[in-house]
Order: sequence, then C-alpha cells, then structure tokens
Amino acid sequence: MSIHSFYENAPKHLVAVDCIIFGFEDGKLKLLIMKRKVDPMAGAWSLVGGFVQDNESTDEAAARVLKQTTGMDHIYMDQLHTYGDVNRDTGARVISVTYYALIRIKEHDRILANDHGAHWLSLHQIPPLIFDHSVMLQHALDKLRDKAHTYPVGFELLPEKFTLPQLRNLYEEIYQRELDKRNFRKKILAMNILEKLDEKDKSSSKKGAHLYKFDEAKYEQLMKTGFGFTM
Amino acid sequence: MSIHSFYENAPKHLVAVDCIIFGFEDGKLKLLIMKRKVDPMAGAWSLVGGFVQDNESTDEAAARVLKQTTGMDHIYMDQLHTYGDVNRDTGARVISVTYYALIRIKEHDRILANDHGAHWLSLHQIPPLIFDHSVMLQHALDKLRDKAHTYPVGFELLPEKFTLPQLRNLYEEIYQRELDKRNFRKKILAMNILEKLDEKDKSSSKKGAHLYKFDEAKYEQLMKTGFGFTM
Repeated sequence: MSIHSFYENAPKHLVAVDCIIFGFEDGKLKLLIMKRKVDPMAGAWSLVGGFVQDNESTDEAAARVLKQTTGMDHIYMDQLHTYGDVNRDTGARVISVTYYALIRIKEHDRILANDHGAHWLSLHQIPPLIFDHSVMLQHALDKLRDKAHTYPVGFELLPEKFTLPQLRNLYEEIYQRELDKRNFRKKILAMNILEKLDEKDKSSSKKGAHLYKFDEAKYEQLMKTGFGFTM
Repeated sequence: MSIHSFYENAPKHLVAVDCIIFGFEDGKLKLLIMKRKVDPMAGAWSLVGGFVQDNESTDEAAARVLKQTTGMDHIYMDQLHTYGDVNRDTGARVISVTYYALIRIKEHDRILANDHGAHWLSLHQIPPLIFDHSVMLQHALDKLRDKAHTYPVGFELLPEKFTLPQLRNLYEEIYQRELDKRNFRKKILAMNILEKLDEKDKSSSKKGAHLYKFDEAKYEQLMKTGFGFTM
C-alpha cells in the first residue's frame, strides 16, 4: 500500500478533551462544571472541555481549556483515560481524552469562569452531567482515591501552611467519609513528609492548631517510591 | 452556535491504537512487534497497531488488532495512555491510544502472527521502534512495574500451575533484575493468594518443586485493595 492510500483511506474523527478540575474551598472538595451552550442538550451540565485543534497536542488542548476557563497557566494536568465508544456523544462521534487537575480555587479568575458559565460545585451537589461525563468524573475520583492509598496527594489543593485538621478534612472530602482523628494523625506523621512550623493557626480555637508545611525533598522521594509493596 | 457549526467546524484527526502485547516464554518476558509495511519507515520495527474505524470503539479497535495478529479473543486489554503530539507520526498527524495485554504465547496462532510479519522478541532484544513506540513501550513497562509494587500482576502470563521459581523468574523479567530467592518466597507467600498443590514439577530437579495455583477469591480481593497505604 502506498503512503498516500495508507493514511488517506483511514477515517478521521472528532477528538475532544474533557477536564475534571478539582478545587478545595471552605473545607469542601469542589468540581468546576459548566452549562453547555449548544445542542444536543444545551443548558445541561458538563465538564469543561473542547475540541482538539490541528495545531495543538491533546495535552496543549487540555491546558488551553483550563486557561480559557480559569485564567490559570502552568498547572500540572494528568491524563486519565480516553473514551472512544462510537455513540458516546449524541451529536456526532467524538473520541474524548480526559485530564484532571488539582487547583487552588482562590487563585483562579472568577470573572473569566463566570463569563464561560463555569461554576464550582461541591461533590455532593453535582447534578447529572451530559453523555458519559458522570462516568468520567467517577473514574477521576476513583483514580484520586486510588492514588491517595499509595501516594500523598492533594497537597496542591491546600495553602502552603496548613493544620492537621485541614489536611484531614481534605482527605475526608476525597474519601467522602469521616476519618478517625488520632489514627489519621499517627499515619500522616509516620509518612515523615511534614515539617512542623513554629506557628499556630488560631482561627478556629484559642489554643490554636500547629501549622505544617511539606518537606519537598522527602515528598519527592515518596512520590517516586509510593507506600506500596516492594519486591 | 448551531449544532451544525459546532461539530462541523471542528477539525478531524486520524486516530490509531497501538498495542503493547507482552508474553512469557522460556523464562523470558517477550514483546510482539512487527515490520512496518508502509512508508514512511517501511521495514522498521513497530508495535502492533491500526487505525480506529468508524464503526468501532477504541477498545474494539485494540481487540481487533490483537485478534488479527494473534488469533486471540476475549483477552483483557488495559488502556494505557493517549499520545497526541502534532508531529509524533512523520507520515500524517495521528493521535494514538495505547493498550497493553498479557497473554500466554503458547495459546496464540503462530501462523497468523507470521503472516502479519509479527515476531516475539525478548525485552533485551528489542530493536529501536518507529516514531514514539519505544516511549510507549517504556511507559507500559513502567506501568507494569508500578502495578507489580501494589498488585500481584503477571499471573495471566503463567500456566495454571506453576512453581515459585517460575513466578520469581517472571518477576525478575518484569523488573529486569535478580531477586533474592528467600525474600521473594517470604513476601509472595505472605500475600496469601497462592494455593499449594499436592503436586510437584520434576522437570528441573529430581527432588522437584511444589506446584502452586492462585486462590482466585483472595486474588480478586487483593486486586481491589492493593497492598498499599490505607487511611
């Protein structure tokens, strides 16, 4: 077969990126979603996404979508999965690559998000999403939880200095269940990735709670090896 | 924007699947690769792959490619990653979704594979592969090793009954390094997923080595929870 017919005879497809953008605010894990503007299903809720253009990689498309909706740049996005069922989008065949990002809600551009019809909703307020977007969200949550078993995750969501109750709150939001205070404290300190600061946060009690920050070097090391089983 | 212009104005792309097919034979972890038939780079080695057609999902395309090359059906394939750089294929822009499979080489159709120009090569014999296929392979290996830290993997590659030396050999091939015999034995038995059989394999010594098989129920449970850190 000639090079011409090899590439020319193959069918082409619309390819989209859909972004699962998590943030953490007021003790709640939140997701950025938007009202879809076009039919089919105009007005329904969807993940933030867009079509991959000719001059950009799929990674670049995801970064562009994030930037257009939040104003945020240079955010690490992890590719999750590609959804390739023939009829997943009822408007046309679209193959969709999902990405997820963890961002600090405070740092995003609220006006831009608003202009795009994008809203932060806490996890238990998420309405049904269009097409397979609810499945995409579930996969992203599973991945986040799965990763939290093996790696310390979610620190991208916290301020630089944080208390142990704040950190526990974040993990409770990721797992969507209460965690035992003492057990959590014991396990997280045993990881040996936190640096106790000589400062206290007195916003929630008179006595105050110690502030911590990450020991980046130890954190990096742990991110490489995980907590898992090693032969 | 109308539904028409929304979908019609978006660019379309060639989408391929590339399959990283691992097998285990004669104590070696092997990869199925083939000689490319078309330009650019006709005659160079590549992963086994093909274009996604209009009437099939990406998963179905991967299963079709596997079936066409090995004759094998109903093999579990795990999607790995989507490679979406604009210039990754020098013939045209092609977005590629990778899948990997672990199969028993004995069970594949050698004549079919031969007809397709496909060959099993052990890992340290793999020549440079076209485009980004060497990167795809490396990612698949990293994933396999990563998974082996947290889950018992690779049992799809072994016969139903196997000895501990065979299992250690498989892990040595996955990690590409020697493992301490006693330590491996201790760790693998501690997982509590093997069932010791009342049979011995006497092919490699007079005394023989005990045969084991998997306890599927315990294995399933472990696959769900992993060995990792749990809050």
